[in-house]
Amino acid sequence: MTTRIDSFQDYRSRMNERILEIDHLGIKRFFNLDTAAYKDAALDTSTKELLGLVASTVLRCNDCIDYHLIQCIAAGWSDRELYDALNVALIVGGSIVIPHLRHAVETIDLLRAEGTVVADTNR
Amino acid sequence: MTTRIDSFQDYRSRMNERILEIDHLGIKRFFNLDTAAYKDAALDTSTKELLGLVASTVLRCNDCIDYHLIQCIAAGWSDRELYDALNVALIVGGSIVIPHLRHAVETIDLLRAEGTVVADTNR
Amino acid sequence: MTTRIDSFQDYRSRMNERILEIDHLGIKRFFNLDTAAYKDAALDTSTKELLGLVASTVLRCNDCIDYHLIQCIAAGWSDRELYDALNVALIVGGSIVIPHLRHAVETIDLLRAEGTVVADTNR
Amino acid sequence: MTTRIDSFQDYRSRMNERILEIDHLGIKRFFNLDTAAYKDAALDTSTKELLGLVASTVLRCNDCIDYHLIQCIAAGWSDRELYDALNVALIVGGSIVIPHLRHAVETIDLLRAEGTVVADTNR
Amino acid sequence: MTTRIDSFQDYRSRMNERILEIDHLGIKRFFNLDTAAYKDAALDTSTKELLGLVASTVLRCNDCIDYHLIQCIAAGWSDRELYDALNVALIVGGSIVIPHLRHAVETIDLLRAEGTVVADTNR
Amino acid sequence: MTTRIDSFQDYRSRMNERILEIDHLGIKRFFNLDTAAYKDAALDTSTKELLGLVASTVLRCNDCIDYHLIQCIAAGWSDRELYDALNVALIVGGSIVIPHLRHAVETIDLLRAEGTVVADTNR
Repeated sequence: MTTRIDSFQDYRSRMNERILEIDHLGIKRFFNLDTAAYKDAALDTSTKELLGLVASTVLRCNDCIDYHLIQCIAAGWSDRELYDALNVALIVGGSIVIPHLRHAVETIDLLRAEGTVVADTNR
Repeated sequence: MTTRIDSFQDYRSRMNERILEIDHLGIKRFFNLDTAAYKDAALDTSTKELLGLVASTVLRCNDCIDYHLIQCIAAGWSDRELYDALNVALIVGGSIVIPHLRHAVETIDLLRAEGTVVADTNR
Repeated sequence: MTTRIDSFQDYRSRMNERILEIDHLGIKRFFNLDTAAYKDAALDTSTKELLGLVASTVLRCNDCIDYHLIQCIAAGWSDRELYDALNVALIVGGSIVIPHLRHAVETIDLLRAEGTVVADTNR
Repeated sequence: MTTRIDSFQDYRSRMNERILEIDHLGIKRFFNLDTAAYKDAALDTSTKELLGLVASTVLRCNDCIDYHLIQCIAAGWSDRELYDALNVALIVGGSIVIPHLRHAVETIDLLRAEGTVVADTNR
Repeated sequence: MTTRIDSFQDYRSRMNERILEIDHLGIKRFFNLDTAAYKDAALDTSTKELLGLVASTVLRCNDCIDYHLIQCIAAGWSDRELYDALNVALIVGGSIVIPHLRHAVETIDLLRAEGTVVADTNR
Repeated sequence: MTTRIDSFQDYRSRMNERILEIDHLGIKRFFNLDTAAYKDAALDTSTKELLGLVASTVLRCNDCIDYHLIQCIAAGWSDRELYDALNVALIVGGSIVIPHLRHAVETIDLLRAEGTVVADTNR
């Protein structure tokens, strides 16, 4: 069965490839810099993916939430830890975040139902 | 010497006291819930303060950045770790975040110059 | 006929129940505090639902707009009054609000076509 | 004694006059439309100023908060009613709103200390 | 074949007509002022549509992006110029803009596949 | 006489130097990418600085507005053209932008009073 997560990942991959075909060095470098920002450094990848999840939630971007949830689950964060991070986003961002909390909780459930979640290495 | 951090903390304490004098249960309960969100739970306080810092930075609130930097430094995060978290905020939020990055880096320098940084337990 | 309002309400109810199954006291308390904020107090419920509508519109959240429109219509606000409130949101928030104004006006029409609108008491 | 409210009002008046000297019809018409949005119509001025206050608070603009607080107090809203409206803004907008809540509560106190508050008729 | 652009334009036209049926002078005047803002004046229409595109992108509104892309293409901007403008929006707004960059690039491809793009004169 | 523009430029230069002393490749590369985004390419620098001005205005960042106004004036845009661009930002972003319009108009006046405005080449 194709879930909305699968459709999102297909669309995302297809359009990212399309964007990288564009002859614009600035856009390509931005994508590289974005990937690099989550690599192990002073902080490790798993902590930074959690930061990415909370940033995406307070900025209220469902696609970004889904992307970072995939990365967070692949990095080994448990549901209880993800809910605790989402609670920080909820208190910082307020009730306007609730529709995105519903989306995030549904995404976690869909990802857990799928079984193994693999990190996206080509951001 | 009184730094802008001291002035901010004085103003913040004075006005938070003033707000809690107000006879409004919802506001009081919101303040309690906000404090509770950063207590050790599935995630520990130090991780959650770092989440608060990144959320505050992408939402571009200098007072919130200063508050969470105080908490993060009291929790033991090093400058290199804080810069790495701020880099995530910068890539997520873009160049519009740069004025707040300048503010954050100055706050870190001011706090380190002051010496011991104590967490605010009465949020 | 199932309208997009019905689908939204089904999804919203189902996911809110799912969220409240989660063992996280902070999230549960936030939901309670959110419900409580709109109860009769110094201001009455109907005024506060109108405030919620305008806040949702300037923050550009369609789900929040739909929720507060249901509550506002159940509270007795007329279309002319709702349009006048939406005009305040439009002037404050600018043309970026227009897609949400289109959504809001369509929701009002769908709700009026359905007939009786009942307030959601379990937020 | 000159308070920060007086300084804000002086600056605001001076710069609004400067803006209206500019030979740009669109800007002039926007200012007129903004003034008109708060006139008695389907909703009365006092309700619409309260909507403007909550919109300004969730969008986190201190100057806009001060402007609408002056108008709200001139329109007769009590402190308890203003706090109840600000609580709606706090729950919708989250803890990122708290610095603006501190500002708003201080402005209310400054305005009450000044005595009579007169509505700004030349927005 | 009906693309999502066609569906968007149908919905947008239908709902704008519905909105202009509403007896609210403020809303009508706002729509007129919005149309007027992009007319040739000190800056020409094509430059102002590009400004509208970048403003819509950093504010992350897909409907607004689609609308301004139609206007920009009708005004004669090439794909390379549009990508260069979108790169400014990406650097200003950060990675949270990426889902809207994907949307914008897809819209450009859909519009080019359709052939002639006509400006919307009744905004 | 030291204006607020001079103080802003001093602070900005000093803190940018401080940030570039930090040993974080991601932050350095972001600053380079930001500078590069405004170089002549498919669009010329002057058009892109105008895009940066409007993006900064709708996102309501005074420091960013001042920076791009300096660049725009150095690039040769007239006051009438800048006002026309700011009018687009005002209509897109709404009355919440007005405090930033006041700031922008004051900055233009201060820069014109200073005489020659030189572009910042080390962003």
